Amino acid sequence: MTETRHQALQYAHQNKHRFLAELNELLAIPSISTDDKRQSDMRRAAEWLESQLRNLGIKNVQIMPTRKHPIVYGEWLEVVGAPTMLIYGHYDVQPVDPLDLWQSPPFTPTQRGENLYARGASDMKGQVVATLKALESIVNNGRLTVNIKFLIEGEEEIGSPSLDTFIPEHKDLLSCDFALNPDAGMIGPGLPTITYALRGLAYFELWIYGPAHDLHSGTFGGVVHNPAQALSELIAGMHDEQGTITLPGFFDKVRKISPKEHAELARLPMNQDYYLEQTGAPALWGEPGYLPVERVGARPTLEVNGFLSGFTGEGTKTVLPAWAMAKISTRLVPDQEPEDAHQSLLHYLDKRAPKDISFELKMLQSSSPAIANIDTMEVRALSRACETVWGKRPLFSRAGGSIPIVALMQKELGAESVLTGFGLPDDNLHAPNEKLHLPTWYKGIDTLINYLFNLES
Amino acid sequence: MTETRHQALQYAHQNKHRFLAELNELLAIPSISTDDKRQSDMRRAAEWLESQLRNLGIKNVQIMPTRKHPIVYGEWLEVVGAPTMLIYGHYDVQPVDPLDLWQSPPFTPTQRGENLYARGASDMKGQVVATLKALESIVNNGRLTVNIKFLIEGEEEIGSPSLDTFIPEHKDLLSCDFALNPDAGMIGPGLPTITYALRGLAYFELWIYGPAHDLHSGTFGGVVHNPAQALSELIAGMHDEQGTITLPGFFDKVRKISPKEHAELARLPMNQDYYLEQTGAPALWGEPGYLPVERVGARPTLEVNGFLSGFTGEGTKTVLPAWAMAKISTRLVPDQEPEDAHQSLLHYLDKRAPKDISFELKMLQSSSPAIANIDTMEVRALSRACETVWGKRPLFSRAGGSIPIVALMQKELGAESVLTGFGLPDDNLHAPNEKLHLPTWYKGIDTLINYLFNLES
Repeated sequence: MTETRHQALQYAHQNKHRFLAELNELLAIPSISTDDKRQSDMRRAAEWLESQLRNLGIKNVQIMPTRKHPIVYGEWLEVVGAPTMLIYGHYDVQPVDPLDLWQSPPFTPTQRGENLYARGASDMKGQVVATLKALESIVNNGRLTVNIKFLIEGEEEIGSPSLDTFIPEHKDLLSCDFALNPDAGMIGPGLPTITYALRGLAYFELWIYGPAHDLHSGTFGGVVHNPAQALSELIAGMHDEQGTITLPGFFDKVRKISPKEHAELARLPMNQDYYLEQTGAPALWGEPGYLPVERVGARPTLEVNGFLSGFTGEGTKTVLPAWAMAKISTRLVPDQEPEDAHQSLLHYLDKRAPKDISFELKMLQSSSPAIANIDTMEVRALSRACETVWGKRPLFSRAGGSIPIVALMQKELGAESVLTGFGLPDDNLHAPNEKLHLPTWYKGIDTLINYLFNLES
Repeated sequence: MTETRHQALQYAHQNKHRFLAELNELLAIPSISTDDKRQSDMRRAAEWLESQLRNLGIKNVQIMPTRKHPIVYGEWLEVVGAPTMLIYGHYDVQPVDPLDLWQSPPFTPTQRGENLYARGASDMKGQVVATLKALESIVNNGRLTVNIKFLIEGEEEIGSPSLDTFIPEHKDLLSCDFALNPDAGMIGPGLPTITYALRGLAYFELWIYGPAHDLHSGTFGGVVHNPAQALSELIAGMHDEQGTITLPGFFDKVRKISPKEHAELARLPMNQDYYLEQTGAPALWGEPGYLPVERVGARPTLEVNGFLSGFTGEGTKTVLPAWAMAKISTRLVPDQEPEDAHQSLLHYLDKRAPKDISFELKMLQSSSPAIANIDTMEVRALSRACETVWGKRPLFSRAGGSIPIVALMQKELGAESVLTGFGLPDDNLHAPNEKLHLPTWYKGIDTLINYLFNLES
């Protein structure tokens, strides 16, 4: 096997210019999922992937329709008794405006120095092609020793609406032992990263109703509870003075951070200075007793995402508003479910909301948190691959955001996801001049080759 | 004198149809101050008043230009040693939209039952004409025994912007002993009312700044103090749990309500049920230990007039906003000044605002509170006039709103204002189908005749 691994890596190095040329082909297709005028480009991108998968000898390759953009599926299930890995990807990209800020056209991939500039170069066509090229390097120099399925969607940048039904409806087709999601990046240059957990989300709208209609604040100020004030009071009470959430039962199902996990998270280079620089806030804030990186990744939080009441235009209007509304969301960690947060917030409001107003709570969006066990064969295989290529252990990260597809696979397929990828924090994702750092990308292909070899052992 | 008074009242009764016809002339002029296309109508209304004053024998009648709409001035200063009363009025009216809700055209005065429908019938052309007709009834049947000045502006419905400079610039011309402002209405049918105090206003914008830009609430939720939450916490702390304002020093200059005043205010028919019905709130709220009518009239309050932060459109956006803004106003009672409230709020913020955000406080608008001594000859004269005509003592009311002109006269001319008037709560002020209850209006003319006679005694 060592010989084959060596040959596969050598193949990758010898073919690096062709690999890049093929990546450029895919990057030249403007597959912007949110733009209805790009339907034929979406199709072209799916067909490009279909052709790549067929050339790799992947079986049962299909472009499967959804209500919006098609899903590319393929499988290679030739190794009896070996585990099956589902590789997730997406071929759609973000819009490109403001176009005038791009130094080169977004769909004309352009190399400047060590970087390749194009929309989707990092997010995530570059990551998808790295996976394909790692596989190509292996199948042209021996044989895969793990079973593989591909699920490459075209709707990630618009919130993956079709997967909610597609995955439950295709449980057998998609059944697998674990999933690889290369849509997560590296924490910094030279810092290979494995993201093993994501927070869930429960997003609410809270309406406070006071008087039956807007009132004159002079004529009635002093006899009714101002709804904007009442909502402020309710929001203020959702944290204690130290910054800990007060909602009844909110922490009941929260998994504790073990000393071992704490030690791993403490390795992450995202300390207080990092967050001060990233946010530009005058000082940090948050739940006492936890590292900043734990507060955003391993602890649940509650945020006010929006607040609207009364007159907010220029100048003055002496109105006592009839209502106030806040968008409030909680980020959840295992084993909290969105409905737990919903009940917790409802109990708080039932207990605390005064009788001189009424309230209405709506849950607008929800997704479960996800976490992968990192003491598994597949995570160790990826970790060793990183160590081989980069000369150091990867960082193990918990992301503060929510990727519903990861929780969905965990729930519907019973498959934990390992997230990795070879994008860098300065890749300008979702912004003009998106780029891919090519030396990092080539190392990424090497990492994935090693990973696939490690999986068999 | 009793004979003359009787003659004057008889004259008023005999001429009531002509009085109404003349009111209709003024009501037919669409003097909408906010509408730039109505400039010639504004002029016509001013000229109509000029002609009325001249016919009454008023001296030095002038239409005085301002930067916007002219002021009608006149004086009758023939009684050496008698006090001088400044009569305030305005000849401008509110816009009329939505026009399709009017049952008869707003500038075609139309009588239905006991009511006269027209824009400005109650607010306040009817009140101005009542004053003119009371004077006419006297000067045609004897002689005034009090000195009089008229100040009738055309900008009340747009906030009296010219008076801020006009009054200080014409202190000598406008000097007087007291002012009559018939722009306040009656609390209910058959309930003559004297309003002797108005609250002042200090209106602020409070900005809270957190991170340097909007952040992703997943990636950064948990490490920075959410500005919408920080603003909610600051607002929540501005009242204690009972509803009393907590700002340091805020109540220092507040005049106490004497037992005598409390007894007068308790006579007002605006009890808890009244405010529940007017506001439609589920329950009343406010500073403990005071009647509802005291809370809106004789005690200062603090209101949130508006609150804006983050994403407030339809649906969800997982943003941790960079800023939050609230419009906050305090209503002030003697002897609080707007700058006192400003300092009080600043001290609160300096003490309470956390170091993980910054704040900015702007004062957008201010006016001083006003109060008239009701133990004066002129107030007793008006009170007795009400008793004579209506058979009962008037109600003495403190209004929760702010009329800057009243405070301005008190400050610049040293003249306290007595506010009265003969409009009713259901007159549809500022709304379609504004009306004037004619039997009440005729009694109003009688009241003013009696008042003018009472002033000499």
